[in-house]
Amino acid sequence: MQGPAFGKIAVFGVGLIGGSFALALKKAGAVREVAGVGRSAASLDKARELGIIDTACARPEEAVRGADLILVAAPVAQTQAILASILPHLDAGTIVTDAGSTKCDVVAAARAALGERVAQFVPGHPIAGREQNGPEAAIVDLYTGKKAVLTPLPENAPADVERVAEAWRLCGAIIHRLAPEDHDRVFAAVSHLPHLLAYALVDDIARKPHADLLFQYAASGFRDFTRIAGSSPEMWRDISLANQAALLGELDAYMARLVQLRGLLAEANGAGIEAVYANAQHARHNWIRTIEAAEKQNRQGGD
Amino acid sequence: MQGPAFGKIAVFGVGLIGGSFALALKKAGAVREVAGVGRSAASLDKARELGIIDTACARPEEAVRGADLILVAAPVAQTQAILASILPHLDAGTIVTDAGSTKCDVVAAARAALGERVAQFVPGHPIAGREQNGPEAAIVDLYTGKKAVLTPLPENAPADVERVAEAWRLCGAIIHRLAPEDHDRVFAAVSHLPHLLAYALVDDIARKPHADLLFQYAASGFRDFTRIAGSSPEMWRDISLANQAALLGELDAYMARLVQLRGLLAEANGAGIEAVYANAQHARHNWIRTIEAAEKQNRQGGD
Repeated sequence: MQGPAFGKIAVFGVGLIGGSFALALKKAGAVREVAGVGRSAASLDKARELGIIDTACARPEEAVRGADLILVAAPVAQTQAILASILPHLDAGTIVTDAGSTKCDVVAAARAALGERVAQFVPGHPIAGREQNGPEAAIVDLYTGKKAVLTPLPENAPADVERVAEAWRLCGAIIHRLAPEDHDRVFAAVSHLPHLLAYALVDDIARKPHADLLFQYAASGFRDFTRIAGSSPEMWRDISLANQAALLGELDAYMARLVQLRGLLAEANGAGIEAVYANAQHARHNWIRTIEAAEKQNRQGGD
Repeated sequence: MQGPAFGKIAVFGVGLIGGSFALALKKAGAVREVAGVGRSAASLDKARELGIIDTACARPEEAVRGADLILVAAPVAQTQAILASILPHLDAGTIVTDAGSTKCDVVAAARAALGERVAQFVPGHPIAGREQNGPEAAIVDLYTGKKAVLTPLPENAPADVERVAEAWRLCGAIIHRLAPEDHDRVFAAVSHLPHLLAYALVDDIARKPHADLLFQYAASGFRDFTRIAGSSPEMWRDISLANQAALLGELDAYMARLVQLRGLLAEANGAGIEAVYANAQHARHNWIRTIEAAEKQNRQGGD
């Protein structure tokens, strides 16, 4: 009889991302034991209560020793400290990965913390999320049909990269690979900038003297537009800072576009405004068609 | 036996907004006959096929004569021309209303087109929408539990305003009243600006040389943030122009906030960034709690 794909895994951060990873691997029968490490005892207790982890570890070494795979699923600014706490107890055969939304800073943190043993660290980023946080937000199918992007290092053994890919595939994810720099540029545009814009809009409205009246008439369009402004401020502060250069570049490009569009509006250039709106609508329709076709294919190809 | 609340109603524009209005009144048994007028014969045929309208009228007079209530549900820039086409055939007892997303310009158009008979025009705006358009997008419960804002004129008879309110209540909507100027300022902030921002973001990304790569990794956060960029470019061009002054004011306030936030990011001011994000998250959570409580109350209070 074949055993589970993984023996013991350790998850640093037992919230939405780490918790959903553990739940999915457990459901797939792909893991013998999940050890959890977290900043708060209450989160760890809750995660154990919810069946996300088997063992709540107060100290990193309890979780790290004997683990096949370690997932770091904490705000990216904590990556270096967490990896440094892991290093003294890290077995030679253990693979470490992460789920951070930025990769250049995570790679730099891993090199600083792990030195030569950075070869054991395979950087990753599952493209999935919800605006809720914490163990209660973890769900078994968070990664089903979603992309997991790996940004392997030159030092990584191909077999180790494949092990991490296997874990995400067992969670239902589809594996993609990018260079860390490409990853960060792409996500600055399609994820980090929209988060910043949504936070800025809600903050702007909330500070107006007639904010209550405004919120009273905000409807479903506003709700969807600002959904991502419900995300963890700490996590997104870290992401914004970690991807500062790329995010500033995208923000500047966007503000330049807004200034252009403001000019069209100020001169009541209806044709110019419609051209921008129509180009956006067209591009978005094409994009939705493409992802819907891909989702259909995934469902048909899945087992 | 009591008859339906309305005999004949005429709907100018048989798409999402006008079509859903007609469907809801029909389902409520509140109307004897629905006459439809539209720019395209294909849309009118489709609306009749879908049971939205009973009569497809090639000329306004066929629809207007003998109508108890006329709804103008077309892009706001067409309001004046439509009202002018209605006037020669308008019975003294017929009430006219509209569903435009802006009200100051609609009021001005109504005064210009109808002259003294503007007393028969009660401006309105149902706060409901989907990103699809056309008769196929019309649904019977679009307005259920949604707000319908009326911005009555000093000339309106209270009984006429109440008739329009009754029609929207029969569609399941909850009636609010605002002055036209307040309406336009509120919706510039919570609806028109987010639409402009979403269109600008998708347009910006679509014009980049690596747009395909970017769209490949855009995920659910991007999807929700940009949902409103799937809306009709023509309709939103008209709204942007109609509410130009208020929208420019909101856009300028928002760009000033972005410039501030850019400064915090450029100086890597983590505490400052987190304060903005946290204020937004907090305000949005409170808002969501409030609307969920209101929705619950509506469900319990409904019949």
